Amino acid sequence: MSEELASGPKESPPAPQAEPSEMWKKGGRLLSVLLALNVLLFACTLISGAAFNKVEVYDTDVFALLTAMMLLTTLWILFYLLRTARCPDAVPYRDPHAGPIWLRGGLVLFGICTLVMDVFKTGYYSSFFGCQSAIKILHPLIQAMFVIIQTYFLWVSAKDCIHVHLDLTRCGLMFTLTTNLAIWMAAVVDESMHQAHSYSGALGNTSHTRIAPDLERVGSTVEGDSCPCNTAVCQIFQQGYFYLYPFNIEYSLFASTMLYIMWKNVGRLLASTPGHGHMPSPVNFRETFFAGPILGLLLFLLGLAVFITYEVQVSEEEGHTQQALVVYYSFNIVCLGLMTLVSLSGSVIYRFDRRVMDHHKNPTRTLDVALLMGASLGQYAISYYSIVAVAVGTPRDLLGGLDLAHALLMIAQHIFQNVFIIESLHRGPPGAEPCDNPPKEPCQGLIFANQDALHSLPACPPSPRPAGPSSAGPQEAVAIILAPRGHWRRRCLKDISLFLLLCNVILWILPAFGARPHFSSTVEVEFYGYSLWAAIVNICLPFGIFYRMHAISNLLEVYVLS
Amino acid sequence: MSEELASGPKESPPAPQAEPSEMWKKGGRLLSVLLALNVLLFACTLISGAAFNKVEVYDTDVFALLTAMMLLTTLWILFYLLRTARCPDAVPYRDPHAGPIWLRGGLVLFGICTLVMDVFKTGYYSSFFGCQSAIKILHPLIQAMFVIIQTYFLWVSAKDCIHVHLDLTRCGLMFTLTTNLAIWMAAVVDESMHQAHSYSGALGNTSHTRIAPDLERVGSTVEGDSCPCNTAVCQIFQQGYFYLYPFNIEYSLFASTMLYIMWKNVGRLLASTPGHGHMPSPVNFRETFFAGPILGLLLFLLGLAVFITYEVQVSEEEGHTQQALVVYYSFNIVCLGLMTLVSLSGSVIYRFDRRVMDHHKNPTRTLDVALLMGASLGQYAISYYSIVAVAVGTPRDLLGGLDLAHALLMIAQHIFQNVFIIESLHRGPPGAEPCDNPPKEPCQGLIFANQDALHSLPACPPSPRPAGPSSAGPQEAVAIILAPRGHWRRRCLKDISLFLLLCNVILWILPAFGARPHFSSTVEVEFYGYSLWAAIVNICLPFGIFYRMHAISNLLEVYVLS
Repeated sequence: MSEELASGPKESPPAPQAEPSEMWKKGGRLLSVLLALNVLLFACTLISGAAFNKVEVYDTDVFALLTAMMLLTTLWILFYLLRTARCPDAVPYRDPHAGPIWLRGGLVLFGICTLVMDVFKTGYYSSFFGCQSAIKILHPLIQAMFVIIQTYFLWVSAKDCIHVHLDLTRCGLMFTLTTNLAIWMAAVVDESMHQAHSYSGALGNTSHTRIAPDLERVGSTVEGDSCPCNTAVCQIFQQGYFYLYPFNIEYSLFASTMLYIMWKNVGRLLASTPGHGHMPSPVNFRETFFAGPILGLLLFLLGLAVFITYEVQVSEEEGHTQQALVVYYSFNIVCLGLMTLVSLSGSVIYRFDRRVMDHHKNPTRTLDVALLMGASLGQYAISYYSIVAVAVGTPRDLLGGLDLAHALLMIAQHIFQNVFIIESLHRGPPGAEPCDNPPKEPCQGLIFANQDALHSLPACPPSPRPAGPSSAGPQEAVAIILAPRGHWRRRCLKDISLFLLLCNVILWILPAFGARPHFSSTVEVEFYGYSLWAAIVNICLPFGIFYRMHAISNLLEVYVLS
Repeated sequence: MSEELASGPKESPPAPQAEPSEMWKKGGRLLSVLLALNVLLFACTLISGAAFNKVEVYDTDVFALLTAMMLLTTLWILFYLLRTARCPDAVPYRDPHAGPIWLRGGLVLFGICTLVMDVFKTGYYSSFFGCQSAIKILHPLIQAMFVIIQTYFLWVSAKDCIHVHLDLTRCGLMFTLTTNLAIWMAAVVDESMHQAHSYSGALGNTSHTRIAPDLERVGSTVEGDSCPCNTAVCQIFQQGYFYLYPFNIEYSLFASTMLYIMWKNVGRLLASTPGHGHMPSPVNFRETFFAGPILGLLLFLLGLAVFITYEVQVSEEEGHTQQALVVYYSFNIVCLGLMTLVSLSGSVIYRFDRRVMDHHKNPTRTLDVALLMGASLGQYAISYYSIVAVAVGTPRDLLGGLDLAHALLMIAQHIFQNVFIIESLHRGPPGAEPCDNPPKEPCQGLIFANQDALHSLPACPPSPRPAGPSSAGPQEAVAIILAPRGHWRRRCLKDISLFLLLCNVILWILPAFGARPHFSSTVEVEFYGYSLWAAIVNICLPFGIFYRMHAISNLLEVYVLS
């Protein structure tokens, strides 16, 4: 998904300070992408190798690799911070769309949770210090340092369009991105193994022998007979760090998206002045009809109750699984159905919306759209496998029907929510409604250095900027038209985005903290066999979970901007 | 990899005939992408389900789905052809970069081979007509019809920038693309199963029981006891259609790339007149130093000899496998080493090349770059798994060393070849070498409707086009500067591209027609276990094979344009 329409290009023609080597930007990009791909594939090989018991790659190898990568990344970040601090000209422009406050806030929040997780991990591995490799204790300590430094770095530099050492910066950013993705992969694999282990333990099914032995190494109680985790403190540490994994996973992904935007912005020339952008208005419920947040909050609380009931009933020895699944699926069907309807009505409202479409080049939005579409593939895949299993499989009972309805609604909900969010992100700022008979003269004669200002005027068609003199000076024409606050369409859109946001939060919590109806329900497990189904779910579900968190961040943006 | 630099946008501002609904192009695109994703995932579910014996999805289900998709696609293509024939205004522009002659020629060639394959398939399934589902005979017949109609459609319409029924056309093109990708997936799965079956049969190893039973259904001799393929004719048909699979696979991929470009071009507004473009000069060896083609041809013939020896020795009952592998790896190491050096020297030559970089928007090139980078991931992954297996595994013998060198050189060769090809594709046409002191005045005053012509002038910096009057009329200023033919750099580049082309052909033939050293060599099989290693190779190798064919098509373009 690349931004195609460049009808109003925001980048000015190359300024004289651009180095001649920057004539071919793709060269430097290519180099850094090649570096990142190769490092990432090597890390992927080691991590997937370590996940299988038969393969003679151990988790200590993975820890050693990750520790080395984090140390290197930390050194580069310190170098970057030092350089930009000592040379004020290094960052002549700042991208107003990059690193919005809710993304940086989320990063700090998840970063703090990751630090707590590192404390738990250190405590856990310290419990049997004697019979462990030192790298297992070193790894969480180094990770804590890495998280602190990287969070500070992204907080202060997320908007930078740096203009010195271009190739080195691109490679450094890509390497940092790779480190975060490697940490994400390792965490996802570790967590999947833990989940699969606890489920295969609970089911006690002998048909799981193929996966079960693979779990004997990673993560859990299985440090062999020589290193038992018997003490209460050790058990708490172990439980605790697995419950904090979802935050670590989200931290890595948030950091990755911000680093990617920084990488896209290296050497970028912006026409607008530093610091300009849509100022996020503080979240103010008075601009809504209250229906969205209240209904969303109700569903959120109901979802929490369902989650706790489900976890309790599934982990019980007696066969309450069936009942738990019926409750779980029913809640999901209601929630997904409502979300589908609400997204659809949001799209209908946009049919009557007369704000101009925003076609500016905007790497942040391009990435958002690509990630929304890409990450939803994971949930689509799981749903289609479920549909085939239920449709072809023979026993058609209540649970099969609920499963089918759940899978179909999941697909519909992803489609309509994606359409709604993508359409919202492409709307111009509020109050930019074009007139039917645009008086063209006053706009065409002016010279705008700020393209956003051009679009906030009431009657300017998105026309290509006159080429010559606009790049000459920073004459800025700012025209602020106060939009009629509280129009019913805008209020509706705010309600819709808040409702969808709260629903996405609860649908993130359910899988992220360990609800796995995929394995409790026997329909798919019996149809595909445990190992194939486990492979499908364990590969696709992390993308589904990421989709929810990414949708939350985008819906917050939709709320603020609509 | 999106085309980022829009410093010289080729698209003119929207002409009056553009519909108002086209104001938001992404809306129509989003719809068609969502359609394609969902159909593709559903097809993927069925195909992967049918590949596993335990799952109750059968190959007849897959055949039925593919047949239905091909019928629908054919209907849409006929509708498209009828509409554009009856309404000449439907295609106001033609993209000069889309569907070059070598791509369309390759499509026709592979299409003919696919037709032969369909004849063989029909013959094979007709051999046991009585005990077969009718869909198995219907499927190749429908496929033959589909191939004929689609090839004609792509031959005449590959360059179209259509401007009527935009959303319908986008959805139709995406559905056609999805059909081709589904056919590709089905062919790749069928072929991998066949390969794995023949290898596990040849090795007679009992440790392969996990994969072996899965192969009992797909493709091979295994129509049960009731339907034996005993006659000589039936055996010939069966052997024949498996040897023709590589062509069918390439046909689907070639068609997919052309359809994607057509989809990108729907509703596109081009400034240039129809039919304009780089005219491919006929392949003329007098412009080379002869060293490239001769050395390449030698390696090609040597590779063919190695391939035949390898296939004969591996299929023999006695243990000549070791010897065959040493010969195979040695040839590959020599070939890859030479290719790496040659690509590197090509990149060095570009350091002295003063032609301007071509930053025009060009969907064909963007796709080429993305496919080169994406498809090489498959071979990277296999190589990294090999490297880890050899480096960590204990027995270090000659074969392990050769394997390691082969994997390392494979990575290096992909990297340097990608850099060389991508750099070549971004060069302007020959003869466009900028002067050091550009006399700007004569260029700035002129109005060019043809941006290519602007760049073929000797001294024009890539400046943004004046916005207003250029879209008014088709005033075209064509300036042909006869480049000094036969400059040593250009001759060298032509030699290099021909050499790389021939090497890529032989490196395509080896895996495409069934050489699988991955399974003959015991290093990785013993390290990862058969099933994990088979999964890695069977998922990644199709991308590696596609990479070679795609590189061949790009190198032909590099040869013609340099």
